[in-house]
Amino acid sequence: MPVPISRPVNIPAKSAAGFRLATGDILEVIDLEGQQVADLFCFSIDDTSDTLSSGRSIDYEDTVLFSAGSTLYSHAGKPMLKILTDTCGRHDFLVTPCSLHMFQMMSGSEDYHHSCQENLERALAAFPVDLRQISTTFNIFMNVTFAASGKIEVESPLSNPGDSIRFEAMMPLYIGLTACSDEGSNGGTCKPIAYRITASRA
Amino acid sequence: MPVPISRPVNIPAKSAAGFRLATGDILEVIDLEGQQVADLFCFSIDDTSDTLSSGRSIDYEDTVLFSAGSTLYSHAGKPMLKILTDTCGRHDFLVTPCSLHMFQMMSGSEDYHHSCQENLERALAAFPVDLRQISTTFNIFMNVTFAASGKIEVESPLSNPGDSIRFEAMMPLYIGLTACSDEGSNGGTCKPIAYRITASRA
Repeated sequence: MPVPISRPVNIPAKSAAGFRLATGDILEVIDLEGQQVADLFCFSIDDTSDTLSSGRSIDYEDTVLFSAGSTLYSHAGKPMLKILTDTCGRHDFLVTPCSLHMFQMMSGSEDYHHSCQENLERALAAFPVDLRQISTTFNIFMNVTFAASGKIEVESPLSNPGDSIRFEAMMPLYIGLTACSDEGSNGGTCKPIAYRITASRA
Repeated sequence: MPVPISRPVNIPAKSAAGFRLATGDILEVIDLEGQQVADLFCFSIDDTSDTLSSGRSIDYEDTVLFSAGSTLYSHAGKPMLKILTDTCGRHDFLVTPCSLHMFQMMSGSEDYHHSCQENLERALAAFPVDLRQISTTFNIFMNVTFAASGKIEVESPLSNPGDSIRFEAMMPLYIGLTACSDEGSNGGTCKPIAYRITASRA
């Protein structure tokens, strides 16, 4: 029997998708047009109080930069996602998703702006999770540089059209995945993101 | 009327304290013997779902290194604590508190080990908060270095005996504060930490 491979699913610009992964499933995230960020957050299905943890992952992997071979851990210290392949090589795990509060603070206006925070909450609302636990996301293709002084800068993604990253689910997961809404993180324009799930043989 | 200043309170080695701060209160954390880390986590009293956020603070302050003049933000983007003075100058806001799981993974044994995670949970259990929301702590006096490659290393604290950091509470807060239990982060031995609260005039 061939392993089931779904067709790529398109996440329209400035929106998000929510879906389940079973243990062993492969999630591929594809930057269709290049220079587009996709924020990822996840909850353990078996214990929804246990969520993706930037701080635990940085501590256990001894790095702030994650690529092929890296594991993303939960707050309880359990492996959630392992990065199998990565054609881009630059992602961020330092900063929280963009939010309406952030846009309003930066612009000094009360205008509405789409945000990854709101889009993740909408995408994950279908699942029995506590949306208040959404914290620092794994920001796929996001290019945050840091200096010895500690100063960070959000620069244009290094991803080219067709670049992709593949994760293996190490436990059953609820996933929220965005096509990021922050023009400043995406080379000036917000574009779609695609993802594809290859089901495990289990 | 003089402003009330409490005497310093001692946090014994490998333990933690939990307490409230009112808006405007000054919290001073003192490294009595030098080279001792104190992990801090906090919840908004007015909305206990809103907690300290490393990722939001790094994003809003554009740095991973925080010292005098820096503000620590909540997940909702609200100022929680402002650093007024800092005689050490090196702290960490990247990694989660040490945990029993971490010690057992590193040692390969099932032996019990005190941890900041457990001590924070005990210290904050007296308050009406969701302990599952304890995530990346502000690790006072912790010296985590990082290279351009992303690689981090936990080195001995740069703090000398008597070094201190003073925070102003920007909102009413439940605070958990530890004397860190990880020998490896504290120059080889776990020592006490002191703190002192100066009440606001409000």
